Amino acid sequence: MTSLDNENCSIARTLSVLGDRWTLLVLREAFRDVRRFEDLQQRLGVARDVLTVRLRRLVDEGVLERVPYREPGQRQRWEYRLTAKGLDAYPILVSLLAWGDRHKADPEGPSVVLTHAGCGAPVHTELRCEHGHAVDVHEVRPRRGPGARPRAA
Amino acid sequence: MTSLDNENCSIARTLSVLGDRWTLLVLREAFRDVRRFEDLQQRLGVARDVLTVRLRRLVDEGVLERVPYREPGQRQRWEYRLTAKGLDAYPILVSLLAWGDRHKADPEGPSVVLTHAGCGAPVHTELRCEHGHAVDVHEVRPRRGPGARPRAA
Repeated sequence: MTSLDNENCSIARTLSVLGDRWTLLVLREAFRDVRRFEDLQQRLGVARDVLTVRLRRLVDEGVLERVPYREPGQRQRWEYRLTAKGLDAYPILVSLLAWGDRHKADPEGPSVVLTHAGCGAPVHTELRCEHGHAVDVHEVRPRRGPGARPRAA
Repeated sequence: MTSLDNENCSIARTLSVLGDRWTLLVLREAFRDVRRFEDLQQRLGVARDVLTVRLRRLVDEGVLERVPYREPGQRQRWEYRLTAKGLDAYPILVSLLAWGDRHKADPEGPSVVLTHAGCGAPVHTELRCEHGHAVDVHEVRPRRGPGARPRAA
């Protein structure tokens, strides 16, 4: 039986870069414009060596870029900014937020609501097809893509 | 300065349940209707004890439910099915897939394409507001929600 090759799975590949809790929390902070090591470390309460490793990996992968800055009288330091590749991870965070809002929020509701700058209405992710139809999870059919390979026996 | 309480963050809360690479790969398989321990173990190549712990946690959290089945001549076993709460995690997987398709696929393209059963067109996640506008990441404004609390000093 030929099946799809899991090694060639975009979900697994994404998880190999971003699929770590601290990494995703670093990205959450990056989207909140928290860019400096000390600020990240304090907000997350993460061990410094763990944060160092996570940031290095995100820079190596091109998700964050290091940009120099210097406060008056201090040595040059680095801050970490989202690249275009990092900005592309935003729907992952919005999806994680939505699930937590729905299933893990306190009785009074979520602590944050994402809104559209243009009109003020709440923002969420939707499944849609390229013809513009809203799509339910039960209406999705996976098909072999151009990169599909037979699975190793 | 008052900031938002990170402990009260829906992203962090989701990650505490689903934010583990094996857990997300178990969910990927569940959405492919891979439901049995032996099948999950073989497809993922995960250690049995790791898989056992991940499945137990997902059942305890109500993301998967255990349903008995019995093959002829064998003892009763259990399979693991997505609950409504589990199905709600689908946009997380689609977002992970999309990022990998865009940034980690082989040159020939992704191995899987999600399509809409109704019309056959590819499916993706979109950011939209409740007024129906397509929303760019730069147009999102986080606002305090009903569950926002002052941050502990």
